[in-house]
Amino acid sequence: MHFSDLPKAIKQKQSYLCIGLDSDLEKIPSFLMDYSDPIYEFNKEIIDATLPFCVSYKINTAFYEANGLKGMQTLLRTIEYLQDKDVFIIADAKRGDIGNTSAQYAKAFFESFPCDAITVNPYMGKDSVEPFLNYSDKASILLIHTSNKGSEDFQKLNSDGIPLYEHVLKTSLSWMNNEVNNLMFVVGATYPEQIKQIRTMAPNSFILVPGVGAQGGSLTEVSENGLNKECGLLINSSRGIIYADSTTHFAKVAGQEAKKIQLEMAEILSNQGVLS
Amino acid sequence: MHFSDLPKAIKQKQSYLCIGLDSDLEKIPSFLMDYSDPIYEFNKEIIDATLPFCVSYKINTAFYEANGLKGMQTLLRTIEYLQDKDVFIIADAKRGDIGNTSAQYAKAFFESFPCDAITVNPYMGKDSVEPFLNYSDKASILLIHTSNKGSEDFQKLNSDGIPLYEHVLKTSLSWMNNEVNNLMFVVGATYPEQIKQIRTMAPNSFILVPGVGAQGGSLTEVSENGLNKECGLLINSSRGIIYADSTTHFAKVAGQEAKKIQLEMAEILSNQGVLS
Repeated sequence: MHFSDLPKAIKQKQSYLCIGLDSDLEKIPSFLMDYSDPIYEFNKEIIDATLPFCVSYKINTAFYEANGLKGMQTLLRTIEYLQDKDVFIIADAKRGDIGNTSAQYAKAFFESFPCDAITVNPYMGKDSVEPFLNYSDKASILLIHTSNKGSEDFQKLNSDGIPLYEHVLKTSLSWMNNEVNNLMFVVGATYPEQIKQIRTMAPNSFILVPGVGAQGGSLTEVSENGLNKECGLLINSSRGIIYADSTTHFAKVAGQEAKKIQLEMAEILSNQGVLS
Repeated sequence: MHFSDLPKAIKQKQSYLCIGLDSDLEKIPSFLMDYSDPIYEFNKEIIDATLPFCVSYKINTAFYEANGLKGMQTLLRTIEYLQDKDVFIIADAKRGDIGNTSAQYAKAFFESFPCDAITVNPYMGKDSVEPFLNYSDKASILLIHTSNKGSEDFQKLNSDGIPLYEHVLKTSLSWMNNEVNNLMFVVGATYPEQIKQIRTMAPNSFILVPGVGAQGGSLTEVSENGLNKECGLLINSSRGIIYADSTTHFAKVAGQEAKKIQLEMAEILSNQGVLS
């Protein structure tokens, strides 16, 4: 799905849920081991059961690379399975390197493993991010303030009166081609006060929010702080949905968990006037 | 090669050269396209020709991911080809994510695509780096100050009187198990004055220095600023060596270029008293 179609999809499904496919051989139901590609089977069933309730899937590339060549094959098959599903496919790859290398990463996740968006690490600055932004029909989702404890180590270091993550946000907005507007941001759900502040600084940008669920963030609080008039949020849940059940009913239960969140989201969207 | 064997290898070969396998289908000699795996053939010939003159190969994972599944197969074959060569194999992957995800990346590049070291991005802090450090027989090479222009954007932001990259260096030294000492640092050759400063702050650590050659850094200047009594440097050259010639003699010319650098390094090592 093209990133510009996200607001429409969110209104249609009354959901801004993104489901993280952090699919791990050690955590998926054991009966799936009888399949030749257990993770693919798992993903396929999870996708079929949750598709009505979400607008996006976020594929955590680490979990696929960890399984070597077989894992990369599963990654590609999963992306291909999602291609005709009219959802926003995010490669959660957190890449970033000098320009000519970032161009190769962009080719990897926009062409060879064809996703609609990729998460990008800002540490190496403008020329490490531009090759991703140059794909004007794809979205680049820059790490601003992450959900983990380690986000305190450097992202909050204060310089000229503002923390590093604000510098990253402000500076990166100047890299964006405003006509294309294909830059999005990652802000962890575990720090809702920062979502509010970042929403003020980037009123029209989509914010991808991981950390709801297993990591402890609150859906209501994040939404109140982060919604804009077109929604502007994608809230990710991974473990809370995909590992909600470990029996043969895992997909059905994942669907139920996704539906619960979708219903909460529908209410929030309605209350905040996004659906009107 | 285990990272603790690097000083011995450097003395034996009188070289601290690392060769970057940024192997690109669009840049390798065109006659190689007749092979079923042109990049692998290219790498194999480059390795055979340059092995006497370097102690390490740095595989830039982006260039392999860009070619999809076939590229990942080439990556694995290249690593396997290097396994019995007694060299230090670096996955230049610049990974880093929340703890459970970094653990998967560590598994990817220390087990499934088995390298001796990986480059790691510090932006997400301690828990994003620790899963790599937990592999006590593998080295983690943290980005400190990179060689590209974008390094000016955030890495130099001043906080409490020192730039971000110094905070990253200081803080990450406290994460290291001093008995294992498996943390190394990336500092770009294009900023030699910072290499001197970082050497003072981390006197016993290995520093991987990209940016000599195509990116403009000077071998002599970097060496004078960065050597310690065990050498403590790995200087990377990629394009200047592997693309020195585009005919059927490409490997031979690459070997000659590597040898030129090795001879310069031997002289520097001798002059600085590292060989005695």
